Amino acid sequence: MNFSQQNISDVRNDISKYVIRTPVLRFDFIDSLCGCNVFFKCENFQYTGSFKYRAAINAIKNIPPQFKNRGVITHSSGNFAHALSKASKELNIPCHIVMPSNTPKFKKSAVQYYTKDIIECEPNLKSRELTTSKILNEKRLYFIHPSNNMDVILGNSTCALELIEDYQNLDYVFSPIGGGGLIAGTAIAIKNFTNNCKIIGAEPSNVDDAYRSLISGKIETNRTTDTVADGLRTNLGTINFPIIQQHVKEILLVSEKEIIESLNIILNNLKLVVEPSSSVVLAALIKNKSKFKNKNIGLIMCGGNIDFDNLKF
Amino acid sequence: MNFSQQNISDVRNDISKYVIRTPVLRFDFIDSLCGCNVFFKCENFQYTGSFKYRAAINAIKNIPPQFKNRGVITHSSGNFAHALSKASKELNIPCHIVMPSNTPKFKKSAVQYYTKDIIECEPNLKSRELTTSKILNEKRLYFIHPSNNMDVILGNSTCALELIEDYQNLDYVFSPIGGGGLIAGTAIAIKNFTNNCKIIGAEPSNVDDAYRSLISGKIETNRTTDTVADGLRTNLGTINFPIIQQHVKEILLVSEKEIIESLNIILNNLKLVVEPSSSVVLAALIKNKSKFKNKNIGLIMCGGNIDFDNLKF
Repeated sequence: MNFSQQNISDVRNDISKYVIRTPVLRFDFIDSLCGCNVFFKCENFQYTGSFKYRAAINAIKNIPPQFKNRGVITHSSGNFAHALSKASKELNIPCHIVMPSNTPKFKKSAVQYYTKDIIECEPNLKSRELTTSKILNEKRLYFIHPSNNMDVILGNSTCALELIEDYQNLDYVFSPIGGGGLIAGTAIAIKNFTNNCKIIGAEPSNVDDAYRSLISGKIETNRTTDTVADGLRTNLGTINFPIIQQHVKEILLVSEKEIIESLNIILNNLKLVVEPSSSVVLAALIKNKSKFKNKNIGLIMCGGNIDFDNLKF
Repeated sequence: MNFSQQNISDVRNDISKYVIRTPVLRFDFIDSLCGCNVFFKCENFQYTGSFKYRAAINAIKNIPPQFKNRGVITHSSGNFAHALSKASKELNIPCHIVMPSNTPKFKKSAVQYYTKDIIECEPNLKSRELTTSKILNEKRLYFIHPSNNMDVILGNSTCALELIEDYQNLDYVFSPIGGGGLIAGTAIAIKNFTNNCKIIGAEPSNVDDAYRSLISGKIETNRTTDTVADGLRTNLGTINFPIIQQHVKEILLVSEKEIIESLNIILNNLKLVVEPSSSVVLAALIKNKSKFKNKNIGLIMCGGNIDFDNLKF
C-alpha cells in the first residue's frame, strides 16, 4: 500500500481542527546526556493523552455513511478506547468499546466519560475478538481496529508531519512499535516529506515481535505480554507490516530496566508525564547514543496515560 | 525600592545564556474548564526544575569580588538550595548549603550532585539562621537569601518578562506567594513592561501570611507550616513586602483540597509534572473563574520538583 503526499495532506487538513498541534520540546539535559540534538514531539499533550486521537478522529470521519447512525466498535483496554470514545462523541457517532475485565479502573473511567456502551470480555485476545464479532454482527456496527487500519495509519501520520514541518533537518525519527500503526504512519510521513530522514523503531525486548518479523520477513507473534510498556504488548498487523518492511531499516530493543530508567528521567528531569511506551524511545536512544552522535533526532512521545493513584501527599 | 525597565533588561541580558527560555503552553481543556484563555509559563522545565535558577544565577553573578574565592551560603531545604548549588558550580564559586535534618532524601541528593558542602541543622527557622550565621562568620562567606534579596527578585522578574513578551495581551498574571520573591519579581516585570496587566497572588489558606499582611499593612507570620505546597511555607521578607504592597491588589486563598485537586488535573489531564506550589495558582483560578471570564490569564508554574519514589510499576 502506497500513500502519497496528497493523501497525507488531505487527512491533515481534514482533522487539523479536531486535534491539538502538540508542541515540540527540547531539553539541554537530554542533549548533553545523549550527545545529540533531541526534539520531543509531545503527543502526551494530545486530546485523550495520546496520538491515538489523531487516528480515531480520522477513522470516525471516514466511516461509510450507512454506519453513521448505528455506530462503531473497537476492542481496546487503553488509549485507543479513550480516543475513539471521545472522537465519536465529538462527531456524534455511537461508540461501543470491548474492554478486558482486568482493565485498570482509571482507564475504564476515562472511556465511561464519553460512552456508556462498554462491553466487558475475558482478558485474552480470543475473547476480545469473539465478543467484538458478536456485538458487531448483532448491532451491525463498523469495526475500527486500533492500529491495523488505513485511516488509523493516515491519522497517525499527521504527528510526524507536524514534527518535520517544525524541524526540517531531522536525521532520524524514533517511534515505538506495538501494533505498528504509529511507526507505519510515521514512516509514510517521513518518506513523503523528507529526503534523508530515517525511521528507527524502538521496542521492548520482552515483546520483540516487530524486531523478529523484520528479520524473518513474516509477522512473528509475542510469547508474552510481560512489559511495563502496556501500549506495546500487541502484535503487528497485516496492513502495517509491509509499510514497516519497506521503510524501517532498524529496530532497537530495550530492557524493562532501561524503559523504567528512562521513564524516571522523563518524569524527574524533564518534568513531563509520559507512559512507559513513550520512554521506550528515549531508552533506545540512550542505549545507542554513540551511533547518533551530533545528529538531529526526533522522539515521538506517544502518550502520557499513567496512573497516579499511587502518588501520596 | 523601585526597579526600572533598564534594571530588568540588564539582568535578562546578563543571565539569558545561563537559563532556559521556558515554553508557554496552552491547554484547551483548561480554557474550557475555566472559561478564559490560560497561558502556562512552565518554569518546571527550568534548570533544577524551578524558577529559582534564574534568581540563583543572577545572585551568583553579582556577588562582591572579595567573595568569589570564599564562596556563598544559603539556608534552604528545597528548590533554592538546588538552584544555588548548580549556579555556583556553573560559575565556579564555592557554595555552602544549610539544610534541615528532615529534608527529603531526593532533595538532598539533588544538591549533593553539585556541592559537598551541605551542613545539617535542626528543622526549625532558628536553627537554620544560627547555623548559617556560624558558618558564614567562620568562613567569611556571602549570604544569599532564597527570596528576600534584590538580585533574587531581579532574577525572578525575567520569568514574567518572557511570558509577556510571548503574549502581550495578558489581563492577569497569577503567581504563588511563599517568601514573596517570585511575586515581587513578577510584579516589577509586569508593571514596567505592560500597561494594564494585573498581578494576582495565590496562597494556601493554611499559610496565609501574605493575605493577612496586605490587610494589616505589616508583615504577619504563619502559625503553622502545614501545607502540601512545601515551597510556600516561608514568611514574607522585608524587601519583598513593600513591592507586593505597591503592585499586588489581590491575593486569592485556596484550601489543601483545592491545591491537590488542581495538582491532579495538571498531572493527569495536562501531563505536566509540577509541584503543589505551582498548582496553587491553577486552584485559585478555578475557584474564582467567574471573575476572570474570557480574560487572558498567565499562570506561573513555578516548579516541578516532586518525589516520584512512591510511584509503582
